[in-house]
Amino acid sequence: MDRPYGTAVVAHSGGPTAVINSSLYGVVDEARQHKQIKSLFGAQYGMTGLLSGDFIDLFAQSAQTMTAVSRAPSSALGGSRHEVQEQDLEQVLQVFRRHDVRFFFYTGGNGSMGTARQLQLAAQAAQYDLQVIGIPKTIDNDLLETDHTPGYGSAARFFAYALRDIGADNRALPNQVEIVEVLGRNAGWIVAASAFARNREDEAPHLIYFPENRLPLDTFLADVERVYARYRRCVVAVCEGQLDEKGEAFGADVRSGSRGALASNLGHRLATLVSSNLRLRARSEKPGLLGRSSATVVSHADWQEAQLCGRAAVSAAIAGQAGVMVTLKRDPSRAYAVSTGLVALEAVAFNERLLPPTFRNESERWVTPEFLSYAAPLVGHVPAHQLLETKI
Amino acid sequence: MDRPYGTAVVAHSGGPTAVINSSLYGVVDEARQHKQIKSLFGAQYGMTGLLSGDFIDLFAQSAQTMTAVSRAPSSALGGSRHEVQEQDLEQVLQVFRRHDVRFFFYTGGNGSMGTARQLQLAAQAAQYDLQVIGIPKTIDNDLLETDHTPGYGSAARFFAYALRDIGADNRALPNQVEIVEVLGRNAGWIVAASAFARNREDEAPHLIYFPENRLPLDTFLADVERVYARYRRCVVAVCEGQLDEKGEAFGADVRSGSRGALASNLGHRLATLVSSNLRLRARSEKPGLLGRSSATVVSHADWQEAQLCGRAAVSAAIAGQAGVMVTLKRDPSRAYAVSTGLVALEAVAFNERLLPPTFRNESERWVTPEFLSYAAPLVGHVPAHQLLETKI
Repeated sequence: MDRPYGTAVVAHSGGPTAVINSSLYGVVDEARQHKQIKSLFGAQYGMTGLLSGDFIDLFAQSAQTMTAVSRAPSSALGGSRHEVQEQDLEQVLQVFRRHDVRFFFYTGGNGSMGTARQLQLAAQAAQYDLQVIGIPKTIDNDLLETDHTPGYGSAARFFAYALRDIGADNRALPNQVEIVEVLGRNAGWIVAASAFARNREDEAPHLIYFPENRLPLDTFLADVERVYARYRRCVVAVCEGQLDEKGEAFGADVRSGSRGALASNLGHRLATLVSSNLRLRARSEKPGLLGRSSATVVSHADWQEAQLCGRAAVSAAIAGQAGVMVTLKRDPSRAYAVSTGLVALEAVAFNERLLPPTFRNESERWVTPEFLSYAAPLVGHVPAHQLLETKI
Repeated sequence: MDRPYGTAVVAHSGGPTAVINSSLYGVVDEARQHKQIKSLFGAQYGMTGLLSGDFIDLFAQSAQTMTAVSRAPSSALGGSRHEVQEQDLEQVLQVFRRHDVRFFFYTGGNGSMGTARQLQLAAQAAQYDLQVIGIPKTIDNDLLETDHTPGYGSAARFFAYALRDIGADNRALPNQVEIVEVLGRNAGWIVAASAFARNREDEAPHLIYFPENRLPLDTFLADVERVYARYRRCVVAVCEGQLDEKGEAFGADVRSGSRGALASNLGHRLATLVSSNLRLRARSEKPGLLGRSSATVVSHADWQEAQLCGRAAVSAAIAGQAGVMVTLKRDPSRAYAVSTGLVALEAVAFNERLLPPTFRNESERWVTPEFLSYAAPLVGHVPAHQLLETKI
């Protein structure tokens, strides 16, 4: 390649995941191997650091530090909720000019890919030579054009374990309804993966609801009553973004965030409704952000693929690519194998990929075999707890 | 020993823990080695199974099954919330007579030890030869006469990890207050152990509150404001049983349980109060029962000691003991070493051991060095997450 030597910057956007630092490791380790990248800076706190030029020298990090960082959850660079305005783009380009930044790696979801695209266009308009490459990152798995997103497998695995373990608790101390609130906003990818908690027919979760469909309160209560009548216990996996038949959050408190409104006590609200309407003992658990920050049940495939995406972003930049995002492609001819691809940023920017109907078994409040085949290698094996033999 | 041959029964009471099955394993493995115990039954669902004679044959379990059960969280036998009445004791004795039960191992907390004592007295009054031995079990660590209780170390470890990881999330995406609701009812033992999450001065939790003291709302808000002013973020560890200056749960929803009232949305309520009073972005997480059922961060010492207590209960029975509970004793002359002891059931029945003042640093919203020395071997090492070097 005959690109000029230049500085590279990597930034994280929005909320962290359990494996975003593995992507960072991939960027750093790959960048070290290309002399075209004379310096590699990490922007502190995402857009905030990009605007202020608050950078960390990543080539100055020891190999030992980077290896340990790659295993740490959350974001070692920090992210931000800053909503990017038109004038921000110009300010970032000024900072980039000052540091001779020619490669920019932006790690985030569909909103961040929109920002990445705007920055690429702004650089072109200003005739500033800059290659913007997106690195996919979101627990929500709601990016188009990629088989799945780094971060999803680990969050999915966390909630599969959580439903398995809370389910074991509910089995041991029955006569109670348990509502477990699961991350995922508007998309049912994570709540669907709670299905991996179930290794036996009577195990949790007994009911899975997808935010892609509105859920009438009466339907929900009838479902709980039916399960409870059968097992004297019931564990529900519900997505934090679930809405009722009126398009509201069942009367839960709603807070507005950078990506739309979200109920902050949905599980509690549903447990209260079960208690008051069905006269059943009910409670709720909300692991919440622990589901994206826990380092205890990281998916190995997810961790590896996050790193792969970081490396692929650097390789794409060195190969002269610009205005693209790295994707993960699954080889359909093999049991499970992925490679990386590239897609134009405009194809993923500001778009949301919901859980498709073919992955949802609405009538059973369950997922389809197709979903299980899709997600199993991403989540990894979730072993059953041993039970005592009662038939001897 | 010249005791007659007899059947032994083991039962679990109340809520499960991550290591109660390790105690069960200890009972089963030890009982196999004593020919005085001709059969060993497990009562299904605690008092419910004791009243109905719904038993599982534990000597019929394979070694493989029992080893796997010992590693499974929750209770393989099941527990119950049944409040024991006078006539229940007579019914249990009838069931025991029918099966020639001469040894009874009851695994539970202080309420269960009260029941165990009542049953021992009822047997004596009925001139029925029965040895009742209590096995300590509670995540709350609120039993008298024992250095600590099996179940505590693992629950404490879970919340130390949870605060560490949610703290890492809060560091990466600051400008937010995080309330993390921690198990423990009226006793601050678990919430105190969240201190092990902090490896650096600026890390979570920034504020720890103990339910032993009432917490005026104004004090809480002032604390949060002070921490936030310093770090632009704040993570609070609060016990589910925390009360305000009026002795109420800050206006949270209160549900009544078998062991008194408990707020079911305390964390959410506090986050709402932070948001409305301080105009800060705030949210809450409630891992809840996952904190006692998670199998991912079990304390190794806790798991081992749970088994030790199960074995000691059988040994005590074979040695002719009755009406006692197994205790854990710490050898003060060594770094960390425990042995088991025995204490009369009446010494622990219906009593609650709160976190002593010497373990609480109220003014700093923190624990004392004495607490850290006490709890460190129970919780095990909680490693810090690697951060990037920013000073290079």
